[in-house]
Amino acid sequence: MKRYLIGLVFLVTLAGSLCLAQTNQPAIIEDFKPSSKNQPGQEYPKVNSQGYARFQVVAPQAQSVVVSLGLGGTRGGTPLTKADDGTWMGTTAGPLEEGFHYYRLTVDGGVFNDPGTLNFYGSTRWESGIEIPAHDQDFYALKDVPHGNVVQILFPSASTNTSRRAFVYTPPGYDKDQSKRYPVLYLQHGWGEDETAWTNQGHANLIMDNMIAEGKIKPFIIVMTYGMTNDVKMGGLKNFDIKPFQTVLLDELIPYIDTNFRTLANQPNRAMAGLSMGGMETKTITLARPDVFSHYGLLSGGTYSPEDIKDKSKVKLIFLSCGSFENPDGVTKAAVALKGAGINAVSYVSENTRHEFQTWRRSLHELAPLLFKDK
Amino acid sequence: MKRYLIGLVFLVTLAGSLCLAQTNQPAIIEDFKPSSKNQPGQEYPKVNSQGYARFQVVAPQAQSVVVSLGLGGTRGGTPLTKADDGTWMGTTAGPLEEGFHYYRLTVDGGVFNDPGTLNFYGSTRWESGIEIPAHDQDFYALKDVPHGNVVQILFPSASTNTSRRAFVYTPPGYDKDQSKRYPVLYLQHGWGEDETAWTNQGHANLIMDNMIAEGKIKPFIIVMTYGMTNDVKMGGLKNFDIKPFQTVLLDELIPYIDTNFRTLANQPNRAMAGLSMGGMETKTITLARPDVFSHYGLLSGGTYSPEDIKDKSKVKLIFLSCGSFENPDGVTKAAVALKGAGINAVSYVSENTRHEFQTWRRSLHELAPLLFKDK
Repeated sequence: MKRYLIGLVFLVTLAGSLCLAQTNQPAIIEDFKPSSKNQPGQEYPKVNSQGYARFQVVAPQAQSVVVSLGLGGTRGGTPLTKADDGTWMGTTAGPLEEGFHYYRLTVDGGVFNDPGTLNFYGSTRWESGIEIPAHDQDFYALKDVPHGNVVQILFPSASTNTSRRAFVYTPPGYDKDQSKRYPVLYLQHGWGEDETAWTNQGHANLIMDNMIAEGKIKPFIIVMTYGMTNDVKMGGLKNFDIKPFQTVLLDELIPYIDTNFRTLANQPNRAMAGLSMGGMETKTITLARPDVFSHYGLLSGGTYSPEDIKDKSKVKLIFLSCGSFENPDGVTKAAVALKGAGINAVSYVSENTRHEFQTWRRSLHELAPLLFKDK
Repeated sequence: MKRYLIGLVFLVTLAGSLCLAQTNQPAIIEDFKPSSKNQPGQEYPKVNSQGYARFQVVAPQAQSVVVSLGLGGTRGGTPLTKADDGTWMGTTAGPLEEGFHYYRLTVDGGVFNDPGTLNFYGSTRWESGIEIPAHDQDFYALKDVPHGNVVQILFPSASTNTSRRAFVYTPPGYDKDQSKRYPVLYLQHGWGEDETAWTNQGHANLIMDNMIAEGKIKPFIIVMTYGMTNDVKMGGLKNFDIKPFQTVLLDELIPYIDTNFRTLANQPNRAMAGLSMGGMETKTITLARPDVFSHYGLLSGGTYSPEDIKDKSKVKLIFLSCGSFENPDGVTKAAVALKGAGINAVSYVSENTRHEFQTWRRSLHELAPLLFKDK
């Protein structure tokens, strides 16, 4: 029953993020540059230093072109205006928050992607994406440091009668020292997304590379697979059944990873975390199987209460986070209550972000140094 | 100079594939099924058993929706017709050839992707794709066999001052037997494509998995990186300079692969092949540096003549292929001439295919068993 409430919490959080701040805007500074998420050679969309986004779409005979931002286009529209040359142009009414945003075009009533941008799987479809440069973007930048690999595996799944895909981040040097074994974080995407989200939108591999290069974390493996979350429509989450995914994860994927990668294959060296609906999955599975995971992370994905934890000795860390525009009091108070009950809990609130990937990039950056510390 | 001619050859070949066969078509059989390249849960586009493709696009206020097939939409248009419910529907005028085809929509004069399909990098943009089931599709099907991995690496490139991406196919069992070393095939995409093409469009990893499971080939590693081919527009290929890519490949990527993967790091165990403009690159680089590669493959990418080969003792195999609707006589005769000169040359013609990925999937399937045989 509680997991339904968690689902509700993040839907309400999402609904709370529908509007752009539009009042008393300063003059727009004309220093627009192509978004870093554009396709090669594409000039538009552009972003300026204040966080305004400007779009240009070619559709000479169209009668209406509207840009809709946010998961499922839920964050309001920016209508574009037709110029004499047949292009449609428009700028957001206000600055966007720092970080990554999904968006889509509505062209004469049909939903399409912006041909200017790369596509990212969200809202159960490949969506357009735009990046507002963040003041702290350095921690997920592509730098001249040793890079880990992102390994696509196809693992056998008897329960679903197919080979399933997962991505495995292996830290720099993984292939060189064949005697070394690593702890593993199982990291879940949110509703509408899939196993590509944490690297494509989240830059999880670059976050790890940079922190390892700086000596800030103990290197570990990250495994990302599809959480089977998208069989339900948003709002119908109470019909979600965790069992098929739990079977794939625990009975099929983890044994495959422990056989085929050099893992430390035991509970103290295994973590699970997830964003949004992936947090709901994390909570359900970690509580059902405390023998499998020792470190838990919910990123905009609800909270644990002390009563949830049956055997405190099995829990090494609970990490709870969200954006400051979500429900920061909820995660902060939950961590205090857990600590009061003698559980190692940490809360983190991402400043000035919503239920979006900048919150989750920062959350991974905060979570990673806390994992597997006592080993 | 010769490489310009090769460029010309494949452009002429491309131009020869612009029309669909449209005469005396049989009645359309109503057994349409969703294309295997559709996004999850999407019904359209659909394909029937004859190879007709049927499209449906939602754009209620649009005045015109046209589907254009082929690289860069060069293979003619299928105008869609508006139904009462605001959807646009249409079926190709004739059957399409077996295999994978790029396409795009033109909606009221603007070029967009079909929201029903996955996207594939071709024509220097992410394009829509559709799959016509082929009579021989079994060799690239996802089967219940041991699967190799596709490893995304980011390798340092001093010459281009960045970390560059490559994908590395490692055969099943690569991570288990740490004493085993493997030969390597460097495999290039064509103009307008990038390092994602051989796995996304070509299913190179599945082709390898299946052949290894059947014991048909000696397992080897495949490395795929961006050939830097897209800085020139089609038709301006004579301005293409191979040197920057040759430096990245020979001085940066190969040493990185030989350091970080368990390769057999010598000329007899190194092959290079490429499709279309990647064949042009293969020819230029293999001839310039016969000390690096021993096996050469040009897939719809021109031919070698006996005079090109300065030291026959260094060449273990030359493989030449194309589709039967391209220039089959050219590759067949070139192989005969090479054999006459004492060089181990093999030609292959893919039946009833054009300058498209079905030709290249089949070519890889023919090439793989011939590689590294004498080791």
